[in-house]
Amino acid sequence: MADHIDFYFEFSSPYGYFASTQIEALAAEFQRQVKWHPILLGPMFQATGSAPLVDIPVKGQYSLHDMSRTAELFNIPFKQPDPFPIATVSAARAVLYLQKKNAGQASELAKRLYHAYFAEGRNIGKTEVTLAVAEEVGLSAAELQDGIAQDDIKAQLKQEVNDAMARGVFGSPFMIVDGESFWGFDRFDHIRRWLQQKS
Amino acid sequence: MADHIDFYFEFSSPYGYFASTQIEALAAEFQRQVKWHPILLGPMFQATGSAPLVDIPVKGQYSLHDMSRTAELFNIPFKQPDPFPIATVSAARAVLYLQKKNAGQASELAKRLYHAYFAEGRNIGKTEVTLAVAEEVGLSAAELQDGIAQDDIKAQLKQEVNDAMARGVFGSPFMIVDGESFWGFDRFDHIRRWLQQKS
Repeated sequence: MADHIDFYFEFSSPYGYFASTQIEALAAEFQRQVKWHPILLGPMFQATGSAPLVDIPVKGQYSLHDMSRTAELFNIPFKQPDPFPIATVSAARAVLYLQKKNAGQASELAKRLYHAYFAEGRNIGKTEVTLAVAEEVGLSAAELQDGIAQDDIKAQLKQEVNDAMARGVFGSPFMIVDGESFWGFDRFDHIRRWLQQKS
Repeated sequence: MADHIDFYFEFSSPYGYFASTQIEALAAEFQRQVKWHPILLGPMFQATGSAPLVDIPVKGQYSLHDMSRTAELFNIPFKQPDPFPIATVSAARAVLYLQKKNAGQASELAKRLYHAYFAEGRNIGKTEVTLAVAEEVGLSAAELQDGIAQDDIKAQLKQEVNDAMARGVFGSPFMIVDGESFWGFDRFDHIRRWLQQKS
């Protein structure tokens, strides 16, 4: 079986959300699995001297429009959330905690959290909202609350971000396929072409 | 007849070059013409606080690889030029000068200049190289040399850049279709979807 596709995403990233709705279908086209990696962009932006897209003069305005239009063109439910961006440490830790028990459940939760924020406008930056979303998909909020408070989960998230940066990840979504790096939802078409030309 | 597509491009932009090889085919799919707008990114980067992509830590390395890979995936002849980026004032002025006489010739020259730089590694930042390329496509180097030295052509380029910025243009390639702005070669697919959904 061919290697999995590494899928790096930050929960506050709209293009990461768009990618989360289609990454599994893309992988399935090529008989691949997806490995979900929640990351935090904050430390990466420091390394590249970047800022959240919407804070950049001129480009920020364009980006807000591009996000809505991209959602429309690809039929993805989307409503620009407010507040935006948000801190996503709890959401990322929740996914990491679940991954140790059940990777399938963890990616389901990731998709559900993204949808809650970008389609329903629920602020998953608040731990109680993240826990409520988890409960809606049949997980135990109490267990998850304990889980994300564990020191090893906190350390693991830091480690995941460092590992990602060591692999050259600097944005969201970011996909690594057989050692080849692709940044952005707009690179899905490139991944497809690349895998087709390879095979 | 539907409105033309405004195509803004900087001669030092690899993604602008990629776009230059396909913009007319894209426009033709929807019975559109292309209006070619040579611009300079320098003043725009000042407005958005941006820097040339390849100068950005981490992202720069990725971008260099993405450029070569994009060329390969879309079958576009490409060799990362050196020096890069370059000053493209003469090339931009040459296209503007020609546009007053013959828009078709001007866009042919633009495509030829892009190819000379990004496929043949010729430094079109040097005025004599730009003139030599013009001569190869049957234009008079002497006339063009006079043309690009004219005060009104110099003023026009400044005006074009200001007009573009007033329309929200901040990068290359940048397309405006029926008032809708699209930034990047990777938005060709979005333009296609957008025009299909509109019609």
